[in-house]
Amino acid sequence: MTVGIVGGGQLARMMALAGYRLGLDFLSLDKDPCTPAAQVAPALSGSFTDPTLLDELAHRSEVVTFDWENVPLESLDRIAGRVRIAPPREAPAAARDRLNEKTLFDALRIPTNRHAAVDSEADLAAAVSRLGLPGVLKTRSLGYDGKGQFVLRKPADIAAAWARLGSNAPLLYEEFVPFDYEVSIIGVRGRDGAIRTWPLNRNLHADGVLRLTRAPWRAPALEAAAVRHVRRVLKHFDYVGVLTIEFFVRRGRLLANEMAPRVHNSGHWTIEGAMTSQFENHVRAILGLPLGDTAPRGHSAMINLLGTMPPREALLAEKSLFLHDYGKEPRPGRKLGHCTLVAASAAERDRRAASLLRRLDSRKIAG
Amino acid sequence: MTVGIVGGGQLARMMALAGYRLGLDFLSLDKDPCTPAAQVAPALSGSFTDPTLLDELAHRSEVVTFDWENVPLESLDRIAGRVRIAPPREAPAAARDRLNEKTLFDALRIPTNRHAAVDSEADLAAAVSRLGLPGVLKTRSLGYDGKGQFVLRKPADIAAAWARLGSNAPLLYEEFVPFDYEVSIIGVRGRDGAIRTWPLNRNLHADGVLRLTRAPWRAPALEAAAVRHVRRVLKHFDYVGVLTIEFFVRRGRLLANEMAPRVHNSGHWTIEGAMTSQFENHVRAILGLPLGDTAPRGHSAMINLLGTMPPREALLAEKSLFLHDYGKEPRPGRKLGHCTLVAASAAERDRRAASLLRRLDSRKIAG
Repeated sequence: MTVGIVGGGQLARMMALAGYRLGLDFLSLDKDPCTPAAQVAPALSGSFTDPTLLDELAHRSEVVTFDWENVPLESLDRIAGRVRIAPPREAPAAARDRLNEKTLFDALRIPTNRHAAVDSEADLAAAVSRLGLPGVLKTRSLGYDGKGQFVLRKPADIAAAWARLGSNAPLLYEEFVPFDYEVSIIGVRGRDGAIRTWPLNRNLHADGVLRLTRAPWRAPALEAAAVRHVRRVLKHFDYVGVLTIEFFVRRGRLLANEMAPRVHNSGHWTIEGAMTSQFENHVRAILGLPLGDTAPRGHSAMINLLGTMPPREALLAEKSLFLHDYGKEPRPGRKLGHCTLVAASAAERDRRAASLLRRLDSRKIAG
Repeated sequence: MTVGIVGGGQLARMMALAGYRLGLDFLSLDKDPCTPAAQVAPALSGSFTDPTLLDELAHRSEVVTFDWENVPLESLDRIAGRVRIAPPREAPAAARDRLNEKTLFDALRIPTNRHAAVDSEADLAAAVSRLGLPGVLKTRSLGYDGKGQFVLRKPADIAAAWARLGSNAPLLYEEFVPFDYEVSIIGVRGRDGAIRTWPLNRNLHADGVLRLTRAPWRAPALEAAAVRHVRRVLKHFDYVGVLTIEFFVRRGRLLANEMAPRVHNSGHWTIEGAMTSQFENHVRAILGLPLGDTAPRGHSAMINLLGTMPPREALLAEKSLFLHDYGKEPRPGRKLGHCTLVAASAAERDRRAASLLRRLDSRKIAG
């Protein structure tokens, strides 16, 4: 039984590695022939919108999923009706547009920061006047890791912001939220409507890229609110598979930042740190299999390995560390792998994660 | 960096799945083109002794290992000197011959049952006279899962036993040991000589095939003795990789039954039940990487799935059960997969394993 994946990145790779255990086969489609997924499973190589490749993917797969929210909707539309697709196309359609996403959060009574659509410099001036400063002008789609954003601090910044991003309109202006920290919640919904959520993640970003996730993050009131929110989104889409919402935490309250209709970097710790990983439960969900237990196993810290891979020897010498190398070529800032520490207590986890981060940053872990 | 494996069964498959996480590649060689390993990694298909295929395996691999003790020694000899081979050939050479194995146990002061070489019917009569009855006449090599054995209970059985197995001489006669239960110990030795052992396994066989392993099995004196024994064997061979010894337990003492110079069915629980699995540590060892922590995570029970695969849905609905499906065609008695239960206590593990075994045997878990 084959699971088709549009996209062949590390998320697809980890889905395949989780599903192999269950006796499943995988087939990915990606423009790059040497993706992380293609190194561990059969792959089709070519344009994401190539009708012949899409037809082959549909023909050979029991179900087709995707590993990123910017999956071309026309690709899903091409194969719809011939093969089951999960998650539903409406989820990536909403998640790729920041305005639609915010509108959905508002409609589902999920708190988010105030925002306004901006299609012209006049719209921007009006938005700044209504929402105040500081604020952030953002592209509505295809921005990630801090790209496609402009922070406005004073009225004179309006012209500069428009000059920088105006050609990418339609845009979005958001009030700037000075948050205390960031968390995310990951949920999975089965074909039968059953929902499970993993414990709350506390996330640390650096230069717009996730650096560290600690879970379970014990904050019962926040977790209860996050679970309510993700359940609403899952039900709204009649969703099947894994979905993630990232939140800012400000004065003990959640503000939804964005959602991802897929397995998520902040859930990588679940491979060793939970009874069932996000990858296995995503595969179970889209195949209509019973969902697995999402209870934690110990206290986990996940650290992304960016830019250059530290030497295997140094990382493998760390106690109770699980190394994941995605098989990617090094490139500045690129996510090449991650490692998960599993500790007996939250305090031990935090201490060990801080120590490992310091040594990675200072290159004391080097060849 | 590619690990070559002579053999493509489930053990090779699970090595690949463990090593993929570390960013490694795998290449197996097997006569069957559709092995469990070939379903998840590149494979060479043809005779184990085909010089062209062996040369290709050596050329493409950083290190070559094997997934069964009856690996043709001529295959290893063909590639020796051109690629590193681990474990050392002397280990499978000894393990495949029951007499050599017993002689080694004696030499290393590892208690085993009394035995005698049998090359003729007269030898058998002499052995029966010296060691007594009951006893077991066995082929010296290539026997497994109870095949190639004859139990003698009275002097008149000598002729019948010889008639059945004489054509397979040289043979071995062993005293019959009425044991209380069976255990096994799994150890790993790195290139630098570092040794680690996993907690003791208690094993239950049915019809000569492993059915259930529970670990850690708390029996400190037995475990200490088993660890001493496996360390001696590992050092004797200047071994690199994972090695297993199975023991009978009789009146609180160990009697070595056999050894396997490879990852072992009784260690499958380590995938989820230990900080580092036997598969990952085997791969680490043969590549000269630091060995990982072998401490247990919870209390595990591993149950083999034999003959026909129970429906995925039923198994996945069990709490804290990890399913492994090797992708093999059903055949009576064949090992098609296994599942590991991980519990918070030994008592809970034992209760749940017994319940699951009952339901599997009575086919209450069925489609």
